[in-house]
Amino acid sequence: EGLNKIGKKATVVLREPSLGPVFGIKGGATGGGHSQVIPMEDINLHFTGDFSAIEKAHNLLSALIDNNIQSKTKSIGIDPRTVLWKRVMDMNDRSLRRIVVGLGGTGSGIPRETGFDITAASEVMAILCLSKDMKDLKERLGNIFIGFKMDRTPVYSRDLHAQGAMAALMKDAIKPNLVQTLEGNPAIIHGGPFANIAQGTNSVIATKLGMSLSEYVVTEAGFGADLGAEKFLDIKCQSAGIAPKAVVIVATVRALKYHGGAPLDDLKTENVDALKSGLENMDKHIENIQQFGIAPVVAINKFVSDSDAEHNAIKARCNELGVKCVISDVWGKGGEGAIELATEVVDAVENGGSTFTPIYDWASPVKDKIEAIAKKVYGASSVEYGTTAKRDLRRIAKLGLDHLPICIAKTQKSLSDNPKLLGRPRDFQITVREIEIAAGAGFLVPITGDIMRMPGLPGVPSANHIDISDDGLISGLF
Amino acid sequence: EGLNKIGKKATVVLREPSLGPVFGIKGGATGGGHSQVIPMEDINLHFTGDFSAIEKAHNLLSALIDNNIQSKTKSIGIDPRTVLWKRVMDMNDRSLRRIVVGLGGTGSGIPRETGFDITAASEVMAILCLSKDMKDLKERLGNIFIGFKMDRTPVYSRDLHAQGAMAALMKDAIKPNLVQTLEGNPAIIHGGPFANIAQGTNSVIATKLGMSLSEYVVTEAGFGADLGAEKFLDIKCQSAGIAPKAVVIVATVRALKYHGGAPLDDLKTENVDALKSGLENMDKHIENIQQFGIAPVVAINKFVSDSDAEHNAIKARCNELGVKCVISDVWGKGGEGAIELATEVVDAVENGGSTFTPIYDWASPVKDKIEAIAKKVYGASSVEYGTTAKRDLRRIAKLGLDHLPICIAKTQKSLSDNPKLLGRPRDFQITVREIEIAAGAGFLVPITGDIMRMPGLPGVPSANHIDISDDGLISGLF
Amino acid sequence: EGLNKIGKKATVVLREPSLGPVFGIKGGATGGGHSQVIPMEDINLHFTGDFSAIEKAHNLLSALIDNNIQSKTKSIGIDPRTVLWKRVMDMNDRSLRRIVVGLGGTGSGIPRETGFDITAASEVMAILCLSKDMKDLKERLGNIFIGFKMDRTPVYSRDLHAQGAMAALMKDAIKPNLVQTLEGNPAIIHGGPFANIAQGTNSVIATKLGMSLSEYVVTEAGFGADLGAEKFLDIKCQSAGIAPKAVVIVATVRALKYHGGAPLDDLKTENVDALKSGLENMDKHIENIQQFGIAPVVAINKFVSDSDAEHNAIKARCNELGVKCVISDVWGKGGEGAIELATEVVDAVENGGSTFTPIYDWASPVKDKIEAIAKKVYGASSVEYGTTAKRDLRRIAKLGLDHLPICIAKTQKSLSDNPKLLGRPRDFQITVREIEIAAGAGFLVPITGDIMRMPGLPGVPSANHIDISDDGLISGLF
Amino acid sequence: EGLNKIGKKATVVLREPSLGPVFGIKGGATGGGHSQVIPMEDINLHFTGDFSAIEKAHNLLSALIDNNIQSKTKSIGIDPRTVLWKRVMDMNDRSLRRIVVGLGGTGSGIPRETGFDITAASEVMAILCLSKDMKDLKERLGNIFIGFKMDRTPVYSRDLHAQGAMAALMKDAIKPNLVQTLEGNPAIIHGGPFANIAQGTNSVIATKLGMSLSEYVVTEAGFGADLGAEKFLDIKCQSAGIAPKAVVIVATVRALKYHGGAPLDDLKTENVDALKSGLENMDKHIENIQQFGIAPVVAINKFVSDSDAEHNAIKARCNELGVKCVISDVWGKGGEGAIELATEVVDAVENGGSTFTPIYDWASPVKDKIEAIAKKVYGASSVEYGTTAKRDLRRIAKLGLDHLPICIAKTQKSLSDNPKLLGRPRDFQITVREIEIAAGAGFLVPITGDIMRMPGLPGVPSANHIDISDDGLISGLF
Repeated sequence: EGLNKIGKKATVVLREPSLGPVFGIKGGATGGGHSQVIPMEDINLHFTGDFSAIEKAHNLLSALIDNNIQSKTKSIGIDPRTVLWKRVMDMNDRSLRRIVVGLGGTGSGIPRETGFDITAASEVMAILCLSKDMKDLKERLGNIFIGFKMDRTPVYSRDLHAQGAMAALMKDAIKPNLVQTLEGNPAIIHGGPFANIAQGTNSVIATKLGMSLSEYVVTEAGFGADLGAEKFLDIKCQSAGIAPKAVVIVATVRALKYHGGAPLDDLKTENVDALKSGLENMDKHIENIQQFGIAPVVAINKFVSDSDAEHNAIKARCNELGVKCVISDVWGKGGEGAIELATEVVDAVENGGSTFTPIYDWASPVKDKIEAIAKKVYGASSVEYGTTAKRDLRRIAKLGLDHLPICIAKTQKSLSDNPKLLGRPRDFQITVREIEIAAGAGFLVPITGDIMRMPGLPGVPSANHIDISDDGLISGLF
Repeated sequence: EGLNKIGKKATVVLREPSLGPVFGIKGGATGGGHSQVIPMEDINLHFTGDFSAIEKAHNLLSALIDNNIQSKTKSIGIDPRTVLWKRVMDMNDRSLRRIVVGLGGTGSGIPRETGFDITAASEVMAILCLSKDMKDLKERLGNIFIGFKMDRTPVYSRDLHAQGAMAALMKDAIKPNLVQTLEGNPAIIHGGPFANIAQGTNSVIATKLGMSLSEYVVTEAGFGADLGAEKFLDIKCQSAGIAPKAVVIVATVRALKYHGGAPLDDLKTENVDALKSGLENMDKHIENIQQFGIAPVVAINKFVSDSDAEHNAIKARCNELGVKCVISDVWGKGGEGAIELATEVVDAVENGGSTFTPIYDWASPVKDKIEAIAKKVYGASSVEYGTTAKRDLRRIAKLGLDHLPICIAKTQKSLSDNPKLLGRPRDFQITVREIEIAAGAGFLVPITGDIMRMPGLPGVPSANHIDISDDGLISGLF
Repeated sequence: EGLNKIGKKATVVLREPSLGPVFGIKGGATGGGHSQVIPMEDINLHFTGDFSAIEKAHNLLSALIDNNIQSKTKSIGIDPRTVLWKRVMDMNDRSLRRIVVGLGGTGSGIPRETGFDITAASEVMAILCLSKDMKDLKERLGNIFIGFKMDRTPVYSRDLHAQGAMAALMKDAIKPNLVQTLEGNPAIIHGGPFANIAQGTNSVIATKLGMSLSEYVVTEAGFGADLGAEKFLDIKCQSAGIAPKAVVIVATVRALKYHGGAPLDDLKTENVDALKSGLENMDKHIENIQQFGIAPVVAINKFVSDSDAEHNAIKARCNELGVKCVISDVWGKGGEGAIELATEVVDAVENGGSTFTPIYDWASPVKDKIEAIAKKVYGASSVEYGTTAKRDLRRIAKLGLDHLPICIAKTQKSLSDNPKLLGRPRDFQITVREIEIAAGAGFLVPITGDIMRMPGLPGVPSANHIDISDDGLISGLF
Repeated sequence: EGLNKIGKKATVVLREPSLGPVFGIKGGATGGGHSQVIPMEDINLHFTGDFSAIEKAHNLLSALIDNNIQSKTKSIGIDPRTVLWKRVMDMNDRSLRRIVVGLGGTGSGIPRETGFDITAASEVMAILCLSKDMKDLKERLGNIFIGFKMDRTPVYSRDLHAQGAMAALMKDAIKPNLVQTLEGNPAIIHGGPFANIAQGTNSVIATKLGMSLSEYVVTEAGFGADLGAEKFLDIKCQSAGIAPKAVVIVATVRALKYHGGAPLDDLKTENVDALKSGLENMDKHIENIQQFGIAPVVAINKFVSDSDAEHNAIKARCNELGVKCVISDVWGKGGEGAIELATEVVDAVENGGSTFTPIYDWASPVKDKIEAIAKKVYGASSVEYGTTAKRDLRRIAKLGLDHLPICIAKTQKSLSDNPKLLGRPRDFQITVREIEIAAGAGFLVPITGDIMRMPGLPGVPSANHIDISDDGLISGLF
């Protein structure tokens, strides 16, 4: 909003929130204080039904698969044990991770092992985000890889004639959603959250819509330069032919103190030592953006519990590194609080000399691409492949999909794949458990560490505290 | 619409369609020809998200249950094997009928057997339809019966503090949806389809809204006088304190010929003999409405393939029975085609002498209530209870829920529970497999014959033929 | 042994014990006091390996079935959902009753629902007991009905070439086991226990061996005239062409008092009233044997806790009914204690005028045969068939197996199928849950009430008390 | 037998065969030609019931575990998801590898994921083989590690009072079985096969019995120096305090040609080149034995298809290595054919200067012990641990079981864990999938590569060809 304050026509392009975390531990995704997107409740609860449309399109394909396996006369010979396409539900529901379906005798399908992912992790979500138009959407939906026939040949969504009906379900979902900020500036919300387990950037269509509407498009890519930014730059920008000119790294005092070893329940107390220890985490994010050939601007997202000493420590480090650093107070002051940041961003765009270079070439071998991200971006010393991952590599080669870009699923809590390694871990190994093939979206998903694509609820779920009064006022969403 | 044509202020109150049949074999639910509710595609595909809200509220409770079972510190001691609450999905997906969830080790929940029903069969849908307001909705959501603890005491949704969050998800779904007909008359669409496996009438809130808006409220209750009408009159009217004054029985030449033995692929050829044989099916529906103390009006829903001889045969039979019979041609002529019907309905309401009497008293024993419906309405000679149903009867008594009304799940293809018995079957037995306890909705659901609350797709699903053009035009929905 | 004492050359032919009850609640099967078959421990623990051989032959077929389903090149097209052949284990292990096998991906088989029965309930056990020789055994093993192919044609064991290897495994098991009683008389132990859930009589081969070795063959048929005797007479005698001349009904004071309403933990106290109430249970067993045209002899199996008044009450009732009644004290006195019984038996055989007539004709319809047993032998008023049982009846007709005799699985605790109905229940219904097809053994197994063919262990299993000392002495078997 | 021929009193101590391979692809385990142990059929089919006893003792514990989990009043709080104790069956039945048990509602147990291993892989088999006497057996049976309670404390077999009953079942199995060879020399058969997936050597009791009966005990340890010999020397010899003085490495021309690259269906043709290439495999086995400080003797097990040139090539290589090499023709000539071998063995024992040294010290860290075997014996360059294996290592440390010896499960087809790497593979990695904890047997079982502890049947199982004639002659066992 600062950009609009300084006279630049800007649009913010955001991602839609998932219901899963709303009832779990993360909270909503519309911001807080003076910097909200409204109507907050509707966006956090159902918004425009895009998630539902994606979920239904995804699960329609699942139903068509099991229906075809069950059919005696129309079966195309799918081996039920090889079906990789799961179902999705927008709910943190760990019990659905691994299930056996089709029990109950001849009338109720063929038994097989499968599971649910959270809707944000659906390949259909990624397809929506990466499609240029309806034609592209349908083609990508038809390219979804399902598994193998009994004769070992691959089966795609199009073999079940699924893409037409799936695309029809997404007739409205493909249109970006226009809302406004509290100060009346336009915001386009479209596409998927969860840069940890999914592609996690908003849609190509929305970004391009924003680009056509205004001089500056501000977008977001969650969970740090190792996840959101890397995927945004290596997958989406290359796929859509976009070359970003500036990247704002949002730093918070609390997160840096956490990375510096301060206990989780004591992050509001001043602790300059912990903060200084934690700065090496920021260093790595800055280094990562620089590796892409882009000049980063660090924005300290100010909280009321921050101390000046802490802010100064961050600024000092940025100074050392020759990186611009400003304080942004949109929570307290709205657009006014971001004028300095906006000025620096405009400067970076106009004079920063950014020459966007991706981390890897899509044409490299799969293992090289994974290694490039793991070593250059995460700082790992090596990559290890589990038994399943090795089988997946062979399968990818056999299917001729080696040229696809990489969309790693990794915990957002650490630069490594181990949520307990804080700060800037070194000399660690990234373990790839398995590699999902998203042939429709057009990328490969190495799944690292213990990350789960279907989260669980905590012992006391937030849902316990959410309520609605008799006249319709909702409480407990935050 | 005929009512508005003759100067009466009327509102039609309808039910929302399910996605399941759209991709399966039934087709949409918005009518055809000149008698459509618009925007047809949107209504058939996602409409306003009410179904999604119901589905999410339902599945949120499921996730909370499994999460509580899994929790070592917050567990309230639910015996996983007794949990009756399933999950729902708005999809014809037979493979989800019987599943095992929670596989995959300690991190992914406690294994247990469960399944999915179609969303329309969700108790949350029934609760939405029967709630008077948000307060009532929350209370009913809290009363949902889940299963038992290890110590054999019952567990309700409120024990998991689920009703607040569930109600919050239904903040908008509780509001009726106002659309219009092609001729511009108001139509309120709200609440649930599937009178075969669910309660299947639109919502109390919508009906009352309609009553407050206009002199006449025309509503619908699908699948004949044995299912929709019986449930509408015995459950909803008693629950909401409504006494309907007239009932229109919609007869189609094709359905009567089918019940008279004409082959399914030859229903468009004139066949007066088959039609006459099939009339006894209509007789029973007329008798059923008369049993409720209401004067029925028979409306022949005219199709272009009908012959005059066929229409005359129906009229002659109605004459014999002393029942009014008119031809309605809303498909061909819109509101004009229903003027005669509207006139007769107004006459029936004003002079028909209806004295609404339910088929059974809610206070009777459960088996008496089931028997009353089976014998008086379906024409069965006896009711048989399977092993599970007997256990359920004992459980209902133990929970003190004998006073609830009855919402039988039965095939819509026959007056009996055997889809192959056409016409007016006699001397047949109704077999009750099990009885679901919908303590929140406030009724019991005896499940009869082979009816499934999660349908399957046919060998060649309609989804194969649905497509969307590059510029967004959907084809294949009909 | 009494028979040998009075100079008749007699052989006792018994059944082998199952390990299941040894670790559960029933105790062994070798008798106690002075009337034991030795070596008791070896017989109760493993005996000669016949059970193991049966178990292995049974499970070999199971493995061959799943192996064939899994095979891409050798598959004969079995529909995995229709396979009725389970696995067996000689263990009370309720967790194996209903399982899903074949999980774990392509290498570990095709998932399907199945289960384990206890070994004694194996059709292979029944085949062993009913076979005349190795040729007959192999033919019966080949006739085992497994399920259906995808094209709905039936699959038999011989279609998998299983019978040769199965029979080879039973090379020794087919030979009867000769042991001796404490007094040195020969005893042949061969074939299966559990007349409640299985055929439950010893083998035809053993009985015929006994008949060739001595003048009198004394055999046993457990669990009363409703189960063991009915099956022995209707199935085995007809199958083997044997016409028994006398039947000894063994009465115990304790059991009669239990049937008369005395509490289970107070059966050792004198209670003539309870005993008199319980006598109607004995009446029915006497009536049952008389229905077969055989003169019964009642033997009171004397326990030290019995009182004379109690013995006299039994004798008085037998007198009224014109039935011989003697006291047998083999526990206290060995063969001496059975001299009177032996004399009466010899008398009954030589002068009793028995004209053996079965209860039903094998050629009658299946439902008539079941009804004959339920009404004439159990005293039921009617028979009800569950959904699965009805499907099984249609399947039996389709397979042309209506001519087979009937081997009902029913609780041994009551003449009815409800273990709580003691004494001589009247006006009760027998509920047939399902009907297993034992095409190899050559009978049909209607499963009634809640009886399970795989028992469970009690809360404190006997296994807890069984121990073996360092020098090999076993304790806790009784 | 050669030893007896040259006047030494010798006993052969062998292992019992499993039924699994008899019906699968391996053939029996009693030898062929003039060098058989008799009665061959009985040994291959059921022998003395030891396998059955082990199987039953194993499965009794399984039933006690599930029974305790199910019990509401006697439960000791086992977390069903942590139970590592599976069931066993002596059958190649891949469908039982991964199963879900306890389905079917409250009466049939608590659902959980588990599986079956083949009986030879049972820890009870290993316990039998390593126990010194009944007291030791019971103690080991009580030490079996089962899993964890809900409060994370470990559960052992003794917590369920299972060891007494389990030991009672093994009353006879603990006694070695004495049979004789065709030439009348004694043979003791006792304990377990399958040195690939199990400990795989005969029992300590049998070996000691043999040692007390004769001057020389000849035993066997299958599947080459990498599996059987390593386990025999590192586990059994250390556990029992035995120091072997000579090791005969049995070489066959066919196996060496196979390792040298000759096609599997052409091993009977002379192919000296292939044989020479394959000799490096023999080199490694010789080197392995030498690493244990024992002088090996190579015995060429002569087949009729062998050529002199081939024999000479083997002899030449042994000469180079300074290792004794003799031809043994027991198949063709019985004991006569082994006189030369016996002479050399006696020489090695008396003059060989063997000083037995194990490969690793039991007190070393687990990973060091595994690495010692992998690098020194298999020739691997490194060891990799999967996610599950890493969890197992942490668990072993927590349980204080780091001091146990190692019993690796590895394919017998290669020195590596990849069955396709023939000859003497170098620069390969051993992958440890998981590590089973055999706390009762007293060792840890790292499971490597793709090895399965429950084999499957081939497309055409041998069982298809096994038959028994009407008079009891078995065919098709070989």
